[in-house]
Order: sequence, then structure tokens, then C-alpha cells
Amino acid sequence: MRTLPLWLATSALLLAQTPPPAVKSPEVHADRRITFRVRAPKANQVTFFGDWMKIGDTLAMTRDDGGVWSITVGPMPPSIYLYNFTMDGVNIADPVNPRIKLRAQTSASMVEVPGEPSSTPWQARDVPHGAVEINWVNSKMLEGDPRWVWIYTPPGYEKGSRRYPVLYLFHGSNDIAGGWTLAGQMNFIFDNLLSEKKVEPMIVVMPFGHAVPFGSPRELQARNNELFERHVLEDVVPMVEGKYRVKPGREQRAIAGLSMGGGQALSIGWKHLDKFSAVGAFSAAVPGDFEKQFDAALAAPDKTNAKLKVFWIGCGRDDFLFERNEKFTVMLTSKGIHNTWRATEGNHTYTYWRKYLAEFAPLLFR
Amino acid sequence: MRTLPLWLATSALLLAQTPPPAVKSPEVHADRRITFRVRAPKANQVTFFGDWMKIGDTLAMTRDDGGVWSITVGPMPPSIYLYNFTMDGVNIADPVNPRIKLRAQTSASMVEVPGEPSSTPWQARDVPHGAVEINWVNSKMLEGDPRWVWIYTPPGYEKGSRRYPVLYLFHGSNDIAGGWTLAGQMNFIFDNLLSEKKVEPMIVVMPFGHAVPFGSPRELQARNNELFERHVLEDVVPMVEGKYRVKPGREQRAIAGLSMGGGQALSIGWKHLDKFSAVGAFSAAVPGDFEKQFDAALAAPDKTNAKLKVFWIGCGRDDFLFERNEKFTVMLTSKGIHNTWRATEGNHTYTYWRKYLAEFAPLLFR
Repeated sequence: MRTLPLWLATSALLLAQTPPPAVKSPEVHADRRITFRVRAPKANQVTFFGDWMKIGDTLAMTRDDGGVWSITVGPMPPSIYLYNFTMDGVNIADPVNPRIKLRAQTSASMVEVPGEPSSTPWQARDVPHGAVEINWVNSKMLEGDPRWVWIYTPPGYEKGSRRYPVLYLFHGSNDIAGGWTLAGQMNFIFDNLLSEKKVEPMIVVMPFGHAVPFGSPRELQARNNELFERHVLEDVVPMVEGKYRVKPGREQRAIAGLSMGGGQALSIGWKHLDKFSAVGAFSAAVPGDFEKQFDAALAAPDKTNAKLKVFWIGCGRDDFLFERNEKFTVMLTSKGIHNTWRATEGNHTYTYWRKYLAEFAPLLFR
Repeated sequence: MRTLPLWLATSALLLAQTPPPAVKSPEVHADRRITFRVRAPKANQVTFFGDWMKIGDTLAMTRDDGGVWSITVGPMPPSIYLYNFTMDGVNIADPVNPRIKLRAQTSASMVEVPGEPSSTPWQARDVPHGAVEINWVNSKMLEGDPRWVWIYTPPGYEKGSRRYPVLYLFHGSNDIAGGWTLAGQMNFIFDNLLSEKKVEPMIVVMPFGHAVPFGSPRELQARNNELFERHVLEDVVPMVEGKYRVKPGREQRAIAGLSMGGGQALSIGWKHLDKFSAVGAFSAAVPGDFEKQFDAALAAPDKTNAKLKVFWIGCGRDDFLFERNEKFTVMLTSKGIHNTWRATEGNHTYTYWRKYLAEFAPLLFR
């Protein structure tokens, strides 16, 4: 047997530097209940928010004699949930959970409740895995550091000379370019669908939707979508088409997004039907001026329908954008624009966006 | 002018959901001082720790009448620093800073103090950028979900059929596979060195060094390095050599790491001199049994020196591992093993590891 006495000493030193957790949090139980804990002996009040809850609601956490605050919820349906604590008024991520949700701003952590593979297409399985490549693009029109673009390539991409169609996939407000990967697990969704031959192999391009910083003054924030559109078309698409083996032409490009990114996909997609043949809107912030901006395309439904091979709109009934999306599809249908409208259960979270992606992606490039 | 009334309404809704920052934090001033702030009106005490400070030290933050706690430090030398607050005994990341340091455990945020390009090789510049690809590997020997491996490819990798040498680069304890990218900005270091033709184009492979969870019971933790070695040699290297265009043979492979990863690089490198021709140890947790484990190689310095084209050891004088590293190089030199020993200023942080990488990488594959 090898002895590693000084290794252990080193471990002890390093552990002294970064103490092991005083509490276990989150703890997912076999019955799919979850216990959250935070050691905060001096706090006066600690509350809990999970992203399945109504925005603004909180749950009280209970303090034990040792100063550990805890709450147990569920049983919860299988998903990956976002949550945070509020400690004496300050929103914090779970201090001992390594799975932090990177955001444009505000803190949250993630917890995964596993389920049966047949109903959880976002869970990692023992199948071939694609990869997600972070590219940095020197933007011609955006100031500051280069912008990152996360790009999924399917398993086997590096082999051979095959060319692939491309889905441009946008995140929502307060998220980052890596959101669809780190919280959406879009890579595992595609890996799993590919292993079941339910989806065409494709490249998925995920740029950063905050062209101006999230939380900018209103005048600047109002320019975000216009600047993002230019960034996508002038920085991102040329990089993708120069670097990756993509199939050319509008029939080989789709565009989709969630929330703010759903609005961006609607705007950019409809404005450039010469470049995109499929549009997906998940819980979309439908542009308020959509009818005005696209009056010509709406007035020529046959021509528009011929271009839009897939037009998919999904929103949950508990989503604060549900009514707007429902009105949008009613308007579209009244004007003869073909669209698939999926009014689902659920709210404004990745719990549903993962499912929408798993439903939308198989429709593309068939 | 386009009017976007409902866009604005949506923004307002989304902003209501995720309020804009009540405070600006961190704020980097033109004179390189930094102000950190957190709004916590109900807290009794908030303290500050920055990674340039001595471990265990804290700085008191001052509360204003509005309940905002703040501290100003510096002027600071250009770098990217890690820091955290302790609010009534709970370690938290900066709640309004999007740049969170993902870790295996414990929370911290990052703040970048810019400097002149000539002395800050980690800063993004307007040069061609390589990419970092996240791969997921189904491990043969490690339980649980597939392990991620972050892999840098130099600009232009996708063009042509050129093959590249490979540096295996390991992170430290409590870090993640993405640490060298997200905190170390190794991609910009290589991009910049390449643009100045100071480094050979190479592929850099960054696996996850916690084969067993960080904070595991001591008996399990003691097996980490042995399991990680198998993971690297049996899972990672075959994936890399099967997927990427790499040059074959020991002359085309280097291995390096920081802290825990430095110890791993020393162990794996020396144990497999048939596979690696260069070893780098940055603030390394030098294995305590190194002399015993490698007595044969140490007793045959000519043979070992002929195999080790580059053997680079760096540590800062304020690092808690300095003495151990110094003794290590004294031992090596006394036995006739060639090594480059860089005793630098500095402590156990990425501030120095970025510099070590920028100094080490140009020595490789020449």
C-alpha cells in the first residue's frame, strides 16, 4: 500500500484554507423532497425562494439551536431548479452549493432532482456526447472586451467533412451566453435526442444577448435588441460560417430563444426570412410593435407561410407573459399565418424551456 | 424612429423580477483603487476578504445611513482578484457582481484591475482568439455524471490539417475544470503570446481535478490523486488523441498544474516520463512521498534529465507552500536533477499563476 502522509498534510492545509461545509445543502432525498440549509447563527431572518414558486413569494426557513436554517420542500417533479436564500434582506446563492447559476446579475444556485430517462431529456446519459465550444469574438459594433459565443457541435463533428444546419439559440434577460448549457443542459438534450435519432444533427450557436449591460439606464437598455441584432448578423454569423462546417442557405438556419431571447428571435427571424426558415419562441417577450413592424409580411400570409417552414410558440399558463403570447398567436392565426401554439403548464423557468427545446428541435431541418 | 412601448413594458416586468443593483460593486477607479459595496441594512457586521490578503485576515466594512456597507482598497496592481464578503458570519459572493468564481465549494467574486498590455498578458486584446471547448467524457472509473474537460485550441485550429503538441494543465483544490479559463484567462494568455510569436501553437487540456468530491471524508479524499491519474490516462488522453489533431509521442506532451494540480502534474509527469517531456509546478502541493516514490529516477539524474526537457517550479515567497517548494528544488538539485526554480513575490493566487503560465508556456515544444 502506498502511504501519502504529506499529501494528507497538504489536504489538511488546503481544507483549513477552504473549510468543508458545516452543512449539507441542497440534500435531495430519495422521495424527491429537497432540504436546503444555511448556517447563519447571527441572522435574524432567512427566507427561501425556488423558481417553481410565484415571483415575490418566499418561504420561511427554520433555525435550529446550532444556528442552521433549513427548509424541506416537495416531493418535486424531476427538473433542475434555481433557488436562492434571502438573509436579513440580502439575496444570496447557497454558500456551500458549487452549482451556482451564472447570471448577468443577481445570485442563485441550482439543484437537480433526477427522474426516469424517458421523461428527463436534459439528464446526462451514457451516450456519445457533443461538445460546447466557447468562442471569443472581437465585436465590430460593441464596445469593451470580446463577446463570447457558446457553440454546440454534435458527437462526431470532428470526424469527416460533413456540413450541418445551424440553430441560433438565445437566452433570456439576466442570463449569460452559457445559460442554455449550464442551466438548460441543451448539450445533453441534443445528445439524448441524437442517440434516439429524434433530431437532425445540427450546430447550435448561443451568443450573449445583453449587447448593453443588463441593468443599464433605460435609454441605453432600449437599444439592446437593435445592437444585438447587428452583433448576431455582422459578428456572429460570419464567424460561425467561417469557422464551422455549416450548410449554406436559409433552409439550413433556424432561430429561437426564451423570454427576451424569444423576442429577439421573433424580430430577427421575421426581419430576415431570407436568412432563416424556422423560428421558435419560448415564453417570448413578444415585441410590442410586431404587427406594425411586420405589417407587409402579415398581409401576405401565403408568401410568409411558404418561407416559415417551422414557426413554434410555447408558453406556460402560469408565465407572466402567457397572455401576451396567447394574443400573439390569435393575431397570427387571424391573419392566416401558420404557427404551432403550445399552451403548456408551467411558469417562466428553464424547467419548461428545456422541454420546449426537446419538442422544438426535432421539427427542424426535416 | 421605431417605438418599442411593449418592449419597455417587458423590460420593466423583467426588471421587477430581478431588480437592478441598488449599489454598484465592485467599482474600479481610474487610480486603480477599488470600492466594494453591499446593501445589507439589517446586518450587524460585514467584513471583506481579498485574495491578496493573508488567509484568515479580514477588513471591516463601514455602514452608511442607508444600510450600504463599503470598503475602498488600493491602488491595486493590475490583476484579476478574488474576493468575498462575510455577512454576520456567512461567507457570500458579491450579490450584484455577475463575475462569480465558480468553485468546487465556497463563494467568491472576481474583479479585474486593468493595466498596460505589456505587463498584463491575461487581458483580452484585439488579436485572433482561440476557443475553449467543453467536452463531456463518460468516465470508465469515476462514478456519477460524465466529467467535463475544457480544451483550448489556438486560433486557426479549424483550418487545415496541422497537428499540435498538447499541454495538460491542472487546476487547484476547490476549483473546477473551467478555472484556468474563467479565472486564469489562459485563453487570452495564449492568444496574446501567439500574436507575439512567443509560444508554439498548442492544444491545452484542462480536466477536472476532483475525482472524488471536494470535501469528501478523509479516507475517500486520500484516493483523489490516484483516481484522477487513472481518469487522465484512461479517459482524457484517449479522448483527446482520438478527437483532436495532436502530435504523437512524449516530446509533444507537457504536464503542469497549480497547487493540488501542481502535485498531480509532478506525480503523473514523473511516473510517466515515457508520455511527458515537460513538467510545470505552480505553487505545487509537492507530494510528500516524492523522494520515496521516485528514488530510481532521482538516482539516475542523467537519464532523467535527458527525458525532462523542461522542468519548471515556481512559487511565491508569501505562499504557504513556499518552504516546501524550496526544499523540493534543493533536494532535486542536490541529486543532480536539472530544474528551473522561480522564487517570486506573491501568494497562493491566480495573480501569480497567470504570470507563471505566461512564463512557462513559451519554454515548451521548442
